[in-house]
Amino acid sequence: MSELYAARRMQLRDRVAGAGSAAALVSRPANVRYLTGCAPSGAALLLGPAIDVLLCGRPLSGDPAEGRPAEDVRVSVLPTRGGDPVVAGADLAAKAGADTLAVEEHHLTVTRHRALSQVAPRLHLTDLACAVEAQRLVKDDDEIACLRIAAEITDQALGELLESILVGRTERHLALELERRLVDHGADGPAFPTSVATGPNAGRPGHLPTDRRVEEGDFLSVCLGANYRGYRCEIGRTFVIGTTPEDWQIELYDLVFAAQRAGREALAPGVECREVDRVTRYVLDAAGYSECLGPWTGHGVGLEIDEDPQLSPAAMGKLDACVPVTVEPGVHIPGRGGVRIDDTLVVRPEADGGPELLTITTKELLAL
Amino acid sequence: MSELYAARRMQLRDRVAGAGSAAALVSRPANVRYLTGCAPSGAALLLGPAIDVLLCGRPLSGDPAEGRPAEDVRVSVLPTRGGDPVVAGADLAAKAGADTLAVEEHHLTVTRHRALSQVAPRLHLTDLACAVEAQRLVKDDDEIACLRIAAEITDQALGELLESILVGRTERHLALELERRLVDHGADGPAFPTSVATGPNAGRPGHLPTDRRVEEGDFLSVCLGANYRGYRCEIGRTFVIGTTPEDWQIELYDLVFAAQRAGREALAPGVECREVDRVTRYVLDAAGYSECLGPWTGHGVGLEIDEDPQLSPAAMGKLDACVPVTVEPGVHIPGRGGVRIDDTLVVRPEADGGPELLTITTKELLAL
Repeated sequence: MSELYAARRMQLRDRVAGAGSAAALVSRPANVRYLTGCAPSGAALLLGPAIDVLLCGRPLSGDPAEGRPAEDVRVSVLPTRGGDPVVAGADLAAKAGADTLAVEEHHLTVTRHRALSQVAPRLHLTDLACAVEAQRLVKDDDEIACLRIAAEITDQALGELLESILVGRTERHLALELERRLVDHGADGPAFPTSVATGPNAGRPGHLPTDRRVEEGDFLSVCLGANYRGYRCEIGRTFVIGTTPEDWQIELYDLVFAAQRAGREALAPGVECREVDRVTRYVLDAAGYSECLGPWTGHGVGLEIDEDPQLSPAAMGKLDACVPVTVEPGVHIPGRGGVRIDDTLVVRPEADGGPELLTITTKELLAL
Repeated sequence: MSELYAARRMQLRDRVAGAGSAAALVSRPANVRYLTGCAPSGAALLLGPAIDVLLCGRPLSGDPAEGRPAEDVRVSVLPTRGGDPVVAGADLAAKAGADTLAVEEHHLTVTRHRALSQVAPRLHLTDLACAVEAQRLVKDDDEIACLRIAAEITDQALGELLESILVGRTERHLALELERRLVDHGADGPAFPTSVATGPNAGRPGHLPTDRRVEEGDFLSVCLGANYRGYRCEIGRTFVIGTTPEDWQIELYDLVFAAQRAGREALAPGVECREVDRVTRYVLDAAGYSECLGPWTGHGVGLEIDEDPQLSPAAMGKLDACVPVTVEPGVHIPGRGGVRIDDTLVVRPEADGGPELLTITTKELLAL
């Protein structure tokens, strides 16, 4: 694994040197983890022609959720209590003779950026921009293997919930139980706060669980995902509680299902991201639900639950093979509830069988 | 409650005007909530002489965890999908005729700050710095009431755990169960990730739960807290599992207890923050454990779990009445484990009975 991280750092080093900087300081936690295997809270990675140092404000915890640094990364714990690893990194770069340093301006606050300038006034600070995020876009086999395990864990947790009695339990309890089951099956934790939405709440994107109890006839929509070795996936499903679904429920479900299938089937290397969004959105627009949709209908996943590419009307760029994305349209009708269906898939060429579905829980409209 | 938020905004408006700015743009979530009662993800509050607008990227969810905006705050949902409320706020300030705008440079990234300059090039951007954080330091009765309820919930959750069988259960499971119990008793959620540390892990600050199982003879240290209406408290306790504690365990416990008591007893209005840290630290330093201590031995709590004041050697400033803080020294001996004891207290003058202890779970060394 150490070679893998070294190769990633080498690629970034080449890019940084090509842009005219002698050194780079990476501070966004997912980027630090991508390049070193480890993301201690607040740590920064200084990448230079001669030096690669992971600067930490405290000793490494050794916790699996934090990861472990690649063997060839020098770990340096700040001697000063409460010091800022980013500021220490700039200081170190200046002392090592660097004249320019590329920093992540989309992650550093104005105040921290100013502190960097002050500690190393002769260092010319440039913008690394999203160079590491761009590198993270296409996943390698190890990364996809982690996502596959994360999806397996997620399917297991959801499957067990479906076998239990749901009527009378609150959204909060169901969400906590799902998170417990994720951990039971080997997740480092939930990939994001689990959403359980019942009745009139069902179908609301990012709904935070309330004390509302599941009732007969409700729509129940859940959205959850496991974090496995830092890699995060996402699944969303909607069910009906108890009796046979009503006609409006079946119609709404079929509509969202059709939209989600259209999006899934559009996934292929070379396809524009906004095209995937367009075909998904079109189905709901045509049925008069254009207002229900958020700014995007899917997004990349990996070391963060919401990363590039974005599947949205304004998205630039095309899909590549080995890019994992979600496809997650939904409709919410105020006062009545709604439907969301969400999968994590890996973009693959037709010759390899097309998009690889990671979250395999059934998308039939189950009455639980 | 609306008058309360209006008074807070008025106070900030006066301060901003005094510093020469016509308007301020607040983006740090806890600050937005403090001034409006509500903190939708990514929202920004534009505060001007004529206009008070809460700019949101999406409609309010109505979830209790998000809070509800005060009645006199105008809520404006961005028409543009995926737009940045902060950028929209700068645009609105410029259109309303403001010539200067104070922004939170310690919260805005360099990239977002640049986007603000670009959307409103004639607006002179100044630094609001930590003006809202300073206002949040001393809590009013409503805020302390929320913290008191948060502490009650936390004590209940911990008390129930102590009555259950612990041997053989993993750190992860115990942490999840504690979080479930917090929610059962009315918390909006945990105030921070619950820490459960057993055996050699015990006493490690911020330890993330692992799959290690509780064994006879272990030290078990837990750190948890409830989030109630946005207000967060913290408790930390250490126990011994099963049999009578060994001598080294009793000695270490008594030492940390003495350090924590020294800190608690030093809390009074007018006392320097670093003095509280000094008396706490002194007890452990004198016993040869100076290396075990982190950069601080306590901190303020409120809408964030870690806010001003900091109780640390370098801390400036003095304590005030009605400031809630934690006192949380600990010792961790690598390979053996350790002890942490952590309380949330409100600073009160001697005449009012001295510091008010919010987290009342016993600090005896229990053998469970």
